[in-house]
Amino acid sequence: MKLIHGGDWAGFETEYGKTPLDFSANISPLGLPERVRAAALRAVEMADRYPDPLNRRLCAALADYHSVPASNIVCGSGASDLIYRLCHTLRPKSAAVFVPGFAEYARALRETWCHVTEIPLSADFCLTQEQLTQIPQDCELLFLCNPNNPTGLLSGRELLLQLLDLCRERGTVVAMDECFLDFCEDAADCSLVSALAQYPELIIIKAFTKTCAMAGLRLGYVFCGSTELAEKLRDCGQPWAVSVIAEEAGIEALCEEDYVNQLRTLISAERRKMKTALEAVGMRVVPGEANFLLFRCTDYGLAEKLRERGILIRDCANFAGLEKGWYRTAIRTEAENIVLMETIREVLHG
Amino acid sequence: MKLIHGGDWAGFETEYGKTPLDFSANISPLGLPERVRAAALRAVEMADRYPDPLNRRLCAALADYHSVPASNIVCGSGASDLIYRLCHTLRPKSAAVFVPGFAEYARALRETWCHVTEIPLSADFCLTQEQLTQIPQDCELLFLCNPNNPTGLLSGRELLLQLLDLCRERGTVVAMDECFLDFCEDAADCSLVSALAQYPELIIIKAFTKTCAMAGLRLGYVFCGSTELAEKLRDCGQPWAVSVIAEEAGIEALCEEDYVNQLRTLISAERRKMKTALEAVGMRVVPGEANFLLFRCTDYGLAEKLRERGILIRDCANFAGLEKGWYRTAIRTEAENIVLMETIREVLHG
Repeated sequence: MKLIHGGDWAGFETEYGKTPLDFSANISPLGLPERVRAAALRAVEMADRYPDPLNRRLCAALADYHSVPASNIVCGSGASDLIYRLCHTLRPKSAAVFVPGFAEYARALRETWCHVTEIPLSADFCLTQEQLTQIPQDCELLFLCNPNNPTGLLSGRELLLQLLDLCRERGTVVAMDECFLDFCEDAADCSLVSALAQYPELIIIKAFTKTCAMAGLRLGYVFCGSTELAEKLRDCGQPWAVSVIAEEAGIEALCEEDYVNQLRTLISAERRKMKTALEAVGMRVVPGEANFLLFRCTDYGLAEKLRERGILIRDCANFAGLEKGWYRTAIRTEAENIVLMETIREVLHG
Repeated sequence: MKLIHGGDWAGFETEYGKTPLDFSANISPLGLPERVRAAALRAVEMADRYPDPLNRRLCAALADYHSVPASNIVCGSGASDLIYRLCHTLRPKSAAVFVPGFAEYARALRETWCHVTEIPLSADFCLTQEQLTQIPQDCELLFLCNPNNPTGLLSGRELLLQLLDLCRERGTVVAMDECFLDFCEDAADCSLVSALAQYPELIIIKAFTKTCAMAGLRLGYVFCGSTELAEKLRDCGQPWAVSVIAEEAGIEALCEEDYVNQLRTLISAERRKMKTALEAVGMRVVPGEANFLLFRCTDYGLAEKLRERGILIRDCANFAGLEKGWYRTAIRTEAENIVLMETIREVLHG
């Protein structure tokens, strides 16, 4: 199995016998929030039971928090589990993704023998009217991510509603991945959760992975525009996808508003500083609004040289729509970001 | 989503506001083994990282313990996750299962639009030569479970090797579920792990769910007869199926031989007593060798009446090949089994 994503701390540890400073996965640098950590520890004591296949308590908590009916919510073992289950549920013959974008959308679609149209984003990686015209007429399922990964760029509400109208006319299901949206300052404006009632073919994908540092617990969820679609999705794949620990941790994560606010403030400030610092050493930096930045470097060996110095960043050369020289770095704490920038300067100039 | 399995403690708790005595799921009654519990608690502190997609440490530990090459081992989020991934990987056009049997095999197969042949076991639920002749010529994937669920009956090594020979000739992949085998006293004799090297189309499914009470953590694994098949399976579905907590707990579970031996002794003794007690109240009991017993009762409302009294057993009327009046009960601790039997007597006799 070829590892196509970032976050291979295990491979680094095997090779070097120590833990890397990992900027290659986009996770909160603040660790598990305290209530989440406590809930996970408590849940270990209940781990001798099967999980609730319907995740009733978590769905009720999510319904309450997001004002979405519990019957329209489906939980899974991370957002990626739900991406695969969605593809297996719908088994589209034709689907579309925007590139560059998260590779799992196309991988999951191809697992169901689907024809996947890759629609290039604009030269500066934006979603525009032009991209909407390129969605195939026969497209049954469209994936998009807002803000997009690996660019961090946010699409505005008006354009997204146009896209939804177009897809509704054609009966195209729209899977909107909002996993990184909570990092954006105008998250509430850009989220399509409030549009769910008007668009039965809309699915919104969310996860606690990034905002609550819960990547290792595996928990994601989707909101479906229709109860029928939620039922089909719930009925696809194994009945016990969400562990007892993930369910309990997720319920508590919804109470961690202070942690998420603190994180958002930290990431905003550090992202600005990191962008300036990367530009100062000659990188082209895409003006992303998430907890990571995409940048271009003339040194094609940057990731490897940083790795030799104990730091992982994401080499983006394997993203469809990108080529050698593109890298993505997570935004972490001030102290860690300083180490990254110092090491980049050392690699480039020293 | 209709709940088709046992273990719905969550539904009971919602309805009655208290925890049931659960004989409907086949889990060790001894709770998490201490090393597993400690490992899970420790792993919570590492849960802010993505899991290793290759589960390198767990695969190495499993390889060492079972003398199977690590390259032939694939881990998943419970045995059921691997059953679905196997079906999605192979996408067979024709497959077969024996009935009665675990419902997830046929559910997973049908999710890939496969034609599923249900082969009835003998009148006393045994696998015999007769069943082997009924495996369709064009069968691409055959699921079986040893000891079988819900009967608990064990098939002998000689017959299983005949089945493997037949399937090898035809190129049929055999998925042998040994999840309950560690409960049997002659487990080593009946396991096909030692046959893996001779049968590249053999896959053995195992889990810690039942023997180490780890149902809520979600961890299963398979041994593949060929590295090629293992690679395809690893490449199917999401990359991060096994949580950080499940991986750490699984590594420690392999050191829990004392716990498993103690459990096996307890279950053997209690199973004998439970069988005698059930027969004494007029049930027909199938002579199973796992941590559960299948029995027939003339009272078709038995499960519901026990539920009203706080006890869950598995109503098996929805198993293909069984009808109303069949029930399955787990074997638990002596004290718990006494409560079950007393309550059954109360229900039957007033």
